[in-house]
Amino acid sequence: MRTVYVNGEYLPEDQAKISVFDRGFLFADGVYEVTSVLDGKLIDFAGHAARLQRSLSELEMASPVTSEELLAIHKELVARNELTEGLVYLQVTRGAADRDFLYPDEDTAPTIVLFTQAKPGLADAPAAKRGIKVISIPDRRWGRRDIKTVQLLYPSMGKMMAKAAGADDAWMVEDGAVTEGTSNNAYIVKGNTIITRHLGEEILHGITRAAVLRMAAESQMKVEERSFTMEEAMDADEAFVTSASTFVMPVVEIDGAQIGTGAPGKVAARLREIYLDESLKAAV
Amino acid sequence: MRTVYVNGEYLPEDQAKISVFDRGFLFADGVYEVTSVLDGKLIDFAGHAARLQRSLSELEMASPVTSEELLAIHKELVARNELTEGLVYLQVTRGAADRDFLYPDEDTAPTIVLFTQAKPGLADAPAAKRGIKVISIPDRRWGRRDIKTVQLLYPSMGKMMAKAAGADDAWMVEDGAVTEGTSNNAYIVKGNTIITRHLGEEILHGITRAAVLRMAAESQMKVEERSFTMEEAMDADEAFVTSASTFVMPVVEIDGAQIGTGAPGKVAARLREIYLDESLKAAV
Repeated sequence: MRTVYVNGEYLPEDQAKISVFDRGFLFADGVYEVTSVLDGKLIDFAGHAARLQRSLSELEMASPVTSEELLAIHKELVARNELTEGLVYLQVTRGAADRDFLYPDEDTAPTIVLFTQAKPGLADAPAAKRGIKVISIPDRRWGRRDIKTVQLLYPSMGKMMAKAAGADDAWMVEDGAVTEGTSNNAYIVKGNTIITRHLGEEILHGITRAAVLRMAAESQMKVEERSFTMEEAMDADEAFVTSASTFVMPVVEIDGAQIGTGAPGKVAARLREIYLDESLKAAV
Repeated sequence: MRTVYVNGEYLPEDQAKISVFDRGFLFADGVYEVTSVLDGKLIDFAGHAARLQRSLSELEMASPVTSEELLAIHKELVARNELTEGLVYLQVTRGAADRDFLYPDEDTAPTIVLFTQAKPGLADAPAAKRGIKVISIPDRRWGRRDIKTVQLLYPSMGKMMAKAAGADDAWMVEDGAVTEGTSNNAYIVKGNTIITRHLGEEILHGITRAAVLRMAAESQMKVEERSFTMEEAMDADEAFVTSASTFVMPVVEIDGAQIGTGAPGKVAARLREIYLDESLKAAV
């Protein structure tokens, strides 16, 4: 049985509970991060800790712990659960208070929960060798996707739509352009140029996205951060997604149409290799 | 201390807890209803029970109880908490499962939580005599507002924006038209016509809205269900909102501008009276 962290305590998972009055439960008034673990070490922890602070700040939510304390909790959970390959999930909410749309008193203690998920074979995922299939769906999420909130019902519905269509994931389209995948950033490659949506309130500012774009630039690859259409995507030489839990994952089919040769592309494969290599070196 | 209902048990509120793995907490994968209690009786219970079924059905979520069982739980909670005036809050989620965007196995038990909130003076609220002030904000919620989900962070932020502006609530505006208030339906009155947004995915299908429109028609009042702009609202003779917890509540100021005479209008006052009168007669 896993050990889960809840508000200062390490508990067996069946005792890991929160109040029904928690605003994360009643109002989706909470934010989260997911950090990958490879070889028992945390990938890109500093990036996730920094984005957590930004999400909290955008929502005027107090931080229950410092980044140093957060790192210590992550490491303790990895150790207690003997996690070598998998994820650490972290959620912070505005805490428990009698139900009211207005935020509670500022002295209300935020809720903090962390748990691990073992994912053997995460780095060596078979999907990375064969590529994944995506469908396109309208983007019907709220307007502040740059804040990593737990308002994940639509992405969840999107994953179910993909599954029902025999695909692995969905890309969301708004005003004629692809925003991102349900839980990842979306990219296409045309000629020798990597194209991915520019940052803004319309997409999550991916930690893996930032690292991959930096590494692409360092490797002299050409990057364009701009909107792209589904038509461009269908006509691309390659497509891929990035996220903390899938790293760089090739996309070989969009809405039933083969992308490029129908096999994972060279750019995606190269970026996955570089990302895993560099991230493991910097893991903590 | 209140008694709270959680998955078949009546518990003291400090023991009313759910798993950190509950999808209501991790994905906002849950729906809710709020039913008013006046004179110890439930107002419009049948309407709320029917809408709950619709929300569950739209999300392919199982119902944990029948409508008859739900009524029995409501009544038991009202009795145990000696509630004469206030609210019964009900939430159903897709249940607890290891975190995955994909819905869990269909045999995963849904979570059901109910609690009461005492609101002395609910029917005789002073705000109904002086009216409330609203501001306008962009509507940045997700696209399926007809499903009553717990993705309430933006409405919560909207109430905070209103408070910061010295107002009581916010009306949300999309594509140049008012959708609704943060937790209520919005109306204006021009001449002898009541105007309120038509039903669709853009707004919640208010139970109080349906009852009030029916009563208005029965009282020979003219009703138009259509979009209206902020300009129309500022130029209206009256404005008001309806919800299960505020019934019919006059709006006397929008974005700092006085509506009509600046006092609650006759139509709103009359509808509030009719609604409270009829609803109390039909309460269970």
